[in-house]
Order: sequence, then C-alpha cells, then structure tokens
Amino acid sequence: MSADKRFMAEALALAEAARGQSAPNPNVGCVIVSTNGRIVGRGSTASGGRPHAEAIALQQAGKKAAGSTVYVTLEPCAHQSPRGPACAELLRAAKPERIVIALKDPDPRTSGKGIKRLRAAGIEVQLGLDRDAARRSLAGWLTRSKLGRPRVTLKLALSIDGKIALPSGESKWITGEDARRHVHLERAHSDMILVGRGTYLADQPRLDVRLPGLEERSPRRALLTHGEAVDGWEILTDPQDVYRLHDVNELLVEGGSATATAFLAEDLVDRILIYRAPIIVGEGKSSFGYVGLDAIGDAHGRWRFVDDHHLGVDRLEVYERVREG
Amino acid sequence: MSADKRFMAEALALAEAARGQSAPNPNVGCVIVSTNGRIVGRGSTASGGRPHAEAIALQQAGKKAAGSTVYVTLEPCAHQSPRGPACAELLRAAKPERIVIALKDPDPRTSGKGIKRLRAAGIEVQLGLDRDAARRSLAGWLTRSKLGRPRVTLKLALSIDGKIALPSGESKWITGEDARRHVHLERAHSDMILVGRGTYLADQPRLDVRLPGLEERSPRRALLTHGEAVDGWEILTDPQDVYRLHDVNELLVEGGSATATAFLAEDLVDRILIYRAPIIVGEGKSSFGYVGLDAIGDAHGRWRFVDDHHLGVDRLEVYERVREG
Repeated sequence: MSADKRFMAEALALAEAARGQSAPNPNVGCVIVSTNGRIVGRGSTASGGRPHAEAIALQQAGKKAAGSTVYVTLEPCAHQSPRGPACAELLRAAKPERIVIALKDPDPRTSGKGIKRLRAAGIEVQLGLDRDAARRSLAGWLTRSKLGRPRVTLKLALSIDGKIALPSGESKWITGEDARRHVHLERAHSDMILVGRGTYLADQPRLDVRLPGLEERSPRRALLTHGEAVDGWEILTDPQDVYRLHDVNELLVEGGSATATAFLAEDLVDRILIYRAPIIVGEGKSSFGYVGLDAIGDAHGRWRFVDDHHLGVDRLEVYERVREG
Repeated sequence: MSADKRFMAEALALAEAARGQSAPNPNVGCVIVSTNGRIVGRGSTASGGRPHAEAIALQQAGKKAAGSTVYVTLEPCAHQSPRGPACAELLRAAKPERIVIALKDPDPRTSGKGIKRLRAAGIEVQLGLDRDAARRSLAGWLTRSKLGRPRVTLKLALSIDGKIALPSGESKWITGEDARRHVHLERAHSDMILVGRGTYLADQPRLDVRLPGLEERSPRRALLTHGEAVDGWEILTDPQDVYRLHDVNELLVEGGSATATAFLAEDLVDRILIYRAPIIVGEGKSSFGYVGLDAIGDAHGRWRFVDDHHLGVDRLEVYERVREG
C-alpha cells in the first residue's frame, strides 16, 4: 500500500468514528503528515458537526502543518458559517504543500469551490483517492443531501430460512454474542434507532450501546406508532416522517416485522444488514409481510449484495438498494 | 503448491467427475506420474463402480507404471471381487516406486489392509495428503458406509427473507441462470434426484441435466408420494425409505416445501445448498413447515456454514449437518 493510501485509510477510520455523531454535518476524517512522514494532526468531525475534522487536525498540528500533506475524506468546506470559519480558509492559512481529497463535495452549491480556493493559494490538490470508500463512509450524509432524508438501514437477525422467531414469538437468541456485539457497533454509528410499538412492548428494548467506551454514543430512540408517546422516545407515525427528521444522517430500523414491512413497502430502506444464524426454524414468524410485490420478476434488480463477514458461527450479509442516477 | 499436492488435486478432480456415477462403489480418482514427472495414466471409477480408478489409470500407463508415483484419493481395495481383481494386487504387479493415498478406507474390514499389502511388496506408501478434501469428495459413499443410506443434499432457491415463492405459488425465477446451471451440475453429481408429488404436478420437472456434455448423466428420478406410480419415476412413500435405496451414494432432494420439511423433521438431511437471490419477496411461501423445533435454543449447533460462492448476482451457501462421532 502506498503512503498516500495508508494515510487516507487512517483518515477514513477517523471518519468512521464520527459516523452517527456528526449530523447535520458530514462525518469527515482528516490526517496531517509532516515533511518527515510523521502524523502531526488527526481529526474527526466533532459531535453535532463542529468543529470540523480539518479544524481539529490543524489545531493539533500547529506550526507543523506548514509544508505538510493533508489527507481528508471530503472536500474542505468553502463557505463561512456562523458556527465557524471555512476549512478552506483555515488550510490556506496553515500553508500545507499538498492536500489529498477522497471525495468532491457533491452539493453543486459548494462542489469544487473548496478545491479552487486551495489551488488559488498555491497548494497542490489531488482528488479522488479512495473515492468509493469515502462514499460508503459518508453514505448517511450523502443520502440526506440527495434525498432529503437519512440513510435508512434495516437490521434483522434471521435463520437460514428467513425466520425471525418461533410461532410463539420466541426469538432469543437467533444469533450469537459476536453478532449481537456487532449490532451494538452499528447502533453507535447511528444517529437514531427506530422500532415498532409491538417490539417496544414485547421487548422493552433499551436499544442502547453496551460496548465498553461507547456508552456515551447511545443514539436517539424513536417509535413508529399511532399510539401515545413514551418518555425518552421520539414518535414517527409513518415511515414518510423520516423526511421530517432533523440532525439524523443514519437511521437504524431494528424491527419488528410490521415496521420493517412498512419501510420496505414505501421503498424507504437503503441498506439491509442480515445477521444470519446457521439454524433452521421451520414454522415461525417471517421477516416481512406484503411489501407490494405481485410478480417475482419485479423483485429483481432492486438489491445488491455488497459484503459479508463471519461473526462467530453467524454471518453478516450486507445488501444495498440499487437506485438509478 | 508442491508437486504431490498438484497431482493429488488432479486425482481429486477425477474423483469429482465420478461423483454421482460410481455407486455402489466409491468415486475415486487416480493419477500415475512417471519418473520424469509426466502424467502417464488417469482414472476415475467408471459408471456403476467398475473398473476402479486405479485399474483404468494402470491400463493407460502400461509399462510406464514401473518406478512411477501413483496418487489415489482412497486406499486401494485389498479384496478380490467377482467383478474384478483387487487394486492392491494390480498395483503390486505394476511396480510403482511410491503410492500417495489421501484417505484410508474407513471400513474396518478392509481399512489398512491395502496399504499393508503394498508395503509388503516394497512400495513406499504415503498416507493422508489432502485427507479432508478426499473426505468431502467421498461424502456420499462415506455416509452410506457409516449410516447405511445415501448422503442427502437438500437444495433450495431462496430470497433474502427465505421465501421459495409468492403466495400464488409463482417461483420462476427466484435465482438467475448461473445458479440454475450450478443446480444442473449438482444433479450430474447425484445418483438420484427426489421431489414431492406437489412439485411434480405443479412443475412436471424433467429434473434432468441440461449441460452440454452431461446429457448422459441424468440421474435416477424419485417421487415422495403415497399416490400412484409415475412412469420413469421411482417411488418413496416415506423419507425413511432412503435406507432401502440401492446404488445411491448421493441423493439430491429438490423440494417442495412439504418434502423438504419431511426430510428435515426426520433428521435425514446431511447438506443444504441455498441458492440465495438478492431479492425480497415479503408475503410468500416459506421454505419449511414445522420441523420439530419448539425452542430456539434447540436449533443451534446442528448446522455448520461450510462454504459460499457467487453465481452471478446470486450466492450459493453450503451448510452441513454436524453429527457427532
């Protein structure tokens, strides 16, 4: 791996750390490398979106930023905000020699302006290294920019034959500890978690993050219900309410079946995480009800398998919605 | 890869070619390599089990077998049969210098006797190279030796959510062409294929092998039914009838749901092939009915995920039944 790729991988890891914490801003990672090849500054977008990753990394680097190479996962912002200075201006003042950017800001109002301003200051700018990884890292914010709503991830624990529970409702546990720990990580990278009222009543799920060191990252909790409010929970009465959510880039829908079905039927799911246990349930509760499908042919081409990995004896399958354009 | 491993891989490929064709005998592969490193003989167990792989390879090698190295996936037989001479005797007469054997014959009546006879003739014998691969290759015959019935493989084409069809019964096509072609290969490696009467009536499946060059390999066909016989199809009235099948090492159960459920409920499935399409069906026909499971905890530890690979946009997941001892 080249040095550039290695440092960008570090910036992407910093960006991942901020995923689910940076809304309404993008989760960005930044690494500053001095002329002697040492990392002198690291930053991820802070909780709530400010300071930006570049500002944090530059502050850490101090004078060592002069002549350095800066790796950043998204084009530095070019617009002044009441909440802070534009990163392009901060970078001009710090005088690095080179800036490596993974992804251009896709918003046409600012896209390319940050880069232009940096180049005008005599800084060498390289664009596009690890662009696809940056796009995956920023998927929540990119979905919000494009569709005006969070990226919606649906999570399910399923048997080989796609069951979520026995006919009695018993579902503890389909998957093992490693898979459940991974769910906690996904929660930590979500701004909000949503369940249906049935799941809330049956499980009274705490839906918090129980990983050591991540206790502070418990996301906001929401119920999909027409019923009365519950203390500490926000209410959505309809999946379409996702368009009205503020400060949510990543929404994790945890079930149950009726809630998952409602989101799928409205085509409001962008990613599915299947935690698949190597068990057969047979007669039991199915993952979903009627999602609007009336012919097998119409089911094809909507989902793409993108990744899988082992979690103990279980496996995580990741699917993404294929959307044109 | 060492030369030994390379030649044994070739022997294993020859063994695979005979899988589903060699019953009641094991599907064995044999490669003979002359002193100058050239392959001078290749053999797979012939259709119906005779001649054995070693006999075919030795005949091909002729005098070049003297001083050669012989690679064979299973210990050569040591017992005279009315259908042909013992391979251990044929090998003694051919005078190779060395014999590399992947798997010892597990049958205690002959196990080790073939090796002993070869060593007594001054031939160097090496045992155990690629033993696990040989065990997988011979799984059908090994199951028959151990349990007195064929290895039963259950094959299903499923959606992400484990459905085999829409509520209407429409199931064409869950999976794509690459997956369906792979099913034909599995058929070619089965001695017998079985469906339920419902599937037979609904689809009138030809259950043949439509791959170029494999037309001759269409396996025997069986129906699980209490109803009347159908021309060209053998009849099983109960899954337990697999214990009465002759000359079947590999049995492929193709469905439908009731038949699959019956085999699972009797614990008569050794391997499951899931051809998983990246589609969501929602309301639809489930893979299985009641298989005897009354608590989620009891479902664990019975199946092991052993392999997967991509077939176009679909994926094949392979699970094996975990049996103790």
